[in-house]
Amino acid sequence: MSNPTITAFDWVPDFAQGQVRDLRVRWALEEVDQPYDVNYLEQGEQKQPPHRARQPFGQVPTYQDGDIALFESGAIVLHIAERFGGLLPDDPAARARAIEWMFAALNTVEPPIMDLAIVTIFEAGQPWSKPRQPAVEQRIHERLKELSVRLSDKTWLDGETFTAGDLLMVAVLRIVEGQGLVETYDNLVAYMARGIERPAFQRALAAQMAGFTGSPPPEFQAWLDKQKQGETI
Amino acid sequence: MSNPTITAFDWVPDFAQGQVRDLRVRWALEEVDQPYDVNYLEQGEQKQPPHRARQPFGQVPTYQDGDIALFESGAIVLHIAERFGGLLPDDPAARARAIEWMFAALNTVEPPIMDLAIVTIFEAGQPWSKPRQPAVEQRIHERLKELSVRLSDKTWLDGETFTAGDLLMVAVLRIVEGQGLVETYDNLVAYMARGIERPAFQRALAAQMAGFTGSPPPEFQAWLDKQKQGETI
Repeated sequence: MSNPTITAFDWVPDFAQGQVRDLRVRWALEEVDQPYDVNYLEQGEQKQPPHRARQPFGQVPTYQDGDIALFESGAIVLHIAERFGGLLPDDPAARARAIEWMFAALNTVEPPIMDLAIVTIFEAGQPWSKPRQPAVEQRIHERLKELSVRLSDKTWLDGETFTAGDLLMVAVLRIVEGQGLVETYDNLVAYMARGIERPAFQRALAAQMAGFTGSPPPEFQAWLDKQKQGETI
Repeated sequence: MSNPTITAFDWVPDFAQGQVRDLRVRWALEEVDQPYDVNYLEQGEQKQPPHRARQPFGQVPTYQDGDIALFESGAIVLHIAERFGGLLPDDPAARARAIEWMFAALNTVEPPIMDLAIVTIFEAGQPWSKPRQPAVEQRIHERLKELSVRLSDKTWLDGETFTAGDLLMVAVLRIVEGQGLVETYDNLVAYMARGIERPAFQRALAAQMAGFTGSPPPEFQAWLDKQKQGETI
């Protein structure tokens, strides 16, 4: 039987390297010890019709395994967890809680964190960006504090067993690693570190980074040159 | 066997009535024809320790059915779909695609839509609110246009069968119903209407609305009075 195939980018800007969502899928595949192939896209290719047919929002990753064709990294991670075993507990109540943490990572904790990326990257040149940042950070702190209280002194979110819920939660926390947000909560720092130290994560990260062999598209180079000249972007 | 029990609010501000996330869970339960009980919380109670023990982020809904205790409406809808049948196709590839649309609704389409709620409600009194709104609406349009293209002339996202993915996507689109965003895309308007017209949705909505028998907390009344006096909120 052939390996599953995922899509990933052959180049992204520095701030996105090590963060593109195929990392979550690679990590899940590494955890369950399933080899996979990668179909690399050049920047821009994700918005063209052939990839849009696989991914209506023009993003990566996608996942193909026989007649299973999926997009949306959360759904792919859940599919891998169900298909290969090892990322969801067998006990029905514990399994449901692991899936609960997957949704909590993506629908409760990640949205305010991605808002900070909007502030600091996509709206960085807007006059409201800096004045607005404290309100966004305040919403992140609210979620992180609640997460920290719930995690308490446990190893993983539901106790001693690492699940697909931890995988997504650690991936979400990593988005703001080193920005002084997660770092406010000692137990979250240790939790994130436990995730990052997992050999499967390290292999996934190395594989994503090794895949960036392409070049920026011309329009990105123009954008970078403007940045270097100190122009508002 | 006793019914599952969910939590919901006995009062929310007008803008949130018919939108609180227990609606999604009620809808799923109505679709699978499963009676349920409701444990109503007064405003403020959701942030107190007894509810925090069930829901670390101090939100509704939660779900309890025997030894299954869950929070996070997406996870609860998925659990109901797996437990009772009728919201996920049997075919493995189609089932995975239905779950893919659940994640797409919550992690790709809902975040920019919730950003608009931040603009128009939670940051409404901020000086950047109005200048920022077009950028937020532009990000919503990007997603809605892509969704409209993928939906094409299909009845539901994956064809003829309504799934838990449609349930969450319609619930997400409804957040901005009537604001001129979804209304730009005729097929999305028709799709949303097909969801809303479902008897199960109508029963769920009526049940949520009927549950608002409580009163606003004093601090909300003070906030409302300020609004009426035209003060910045």
